[in-house]
Amino acid sequence: MEQDPGFIAAVEEAKQGYAEGGVPIGACLVSKDGKILGRGHNLRAQKGSATLHAEISALENSGRLPASAYEGATMYTTLSPCDMCTGACILYKIKRVVIGENKNFVGGEEYLLNRGAEVVVLENAECKELMAKFIEERPELW
Amino acid sequence: MEQDPGFIAAVEEAKQGYAEGGVPIGACLVSKDGKILGRGHNLRAQKGSATLHAEISALENSGRLPASAYEGATMYTTLSPCDMCTGACILYKIKRVVIGENKNFVGGEEYLLNRGAEVVVLENAECKELMAKFIEERPELW
Repeated sequence: MEQDPGFIAAVEEAKQGYAEGGVPIGACLVSKDGKILGRGHNLRAQKGSATLHAEISALENSGRLPASAYEGATMYTTLSPCDMCTGACILYKIKRVVIGENKNFVGGEEYLLNRGAEVVVLENAECKELMAKFIEERPELW
Repeated sequence: MEQDPGFIAAVEEAKQGYAEGGVPIGACLVSKDGKILGRGHNLRAQKGSATLHAEISALENSGRLPASAYEGATMYTTLSPCDMCTGACILYKIKRVVIGENKNFVGGEEYLLNRGAEVVVLENAECKELMAKFIEERPELW
């Protein structure tokens, strides 16, 4: 699953966020037939945004889609999703949430499971290291 | 509570959304000392947005604030919040969520309570009527 185009895109987004001096979290929404619907990264620092977390950015960049477009979709994200992003996945009935790592932060995984989503945690070393490096370098942003 | 400036602002935002041809839901975030931090309305139709619901717009328009700014805050919204907006209120530890009505839609009220927020439902006639009118007029948007 670490070779899925959606996960690779999420990691690219996280690195892009880091390069911009932002919180290095990336996400990518993929349809059930494997098409990338949208990808994005956390823009809290770059845009002074309270809501443009990675998953929200990916959903926003997917545009306004019919409910059917989200059926069977997978949200790839480099870090365990916060309560808002968890709620966004539930709102759109995202079938599966694939999480790069949950060592630096644990979000709404249990609630996702309770609400019927599949949750996969990859414990991906690259995601863990990038996030840990950022938290050490920019504690005021985290 | 229907005379609170935050609720009045939320209703104004809903009407503004309706006037724009959008989903008529408004929200307003108010600090514990009564200052309006941000207000906004649903922009799903206007911006083709998947995430700019009323509460998300209000949070976004509040800008990026320190965690302390949300302490004791109230989110006023004209309609019961969806799962995403519920999660956003939980993320920011909003103390109280004041809901205009929950007849046209019931969202995450129980989860808000479970997570420690206060929830007040006003059963406001104006909110109910505006939303019902919109659903009848624009079922494809709702």
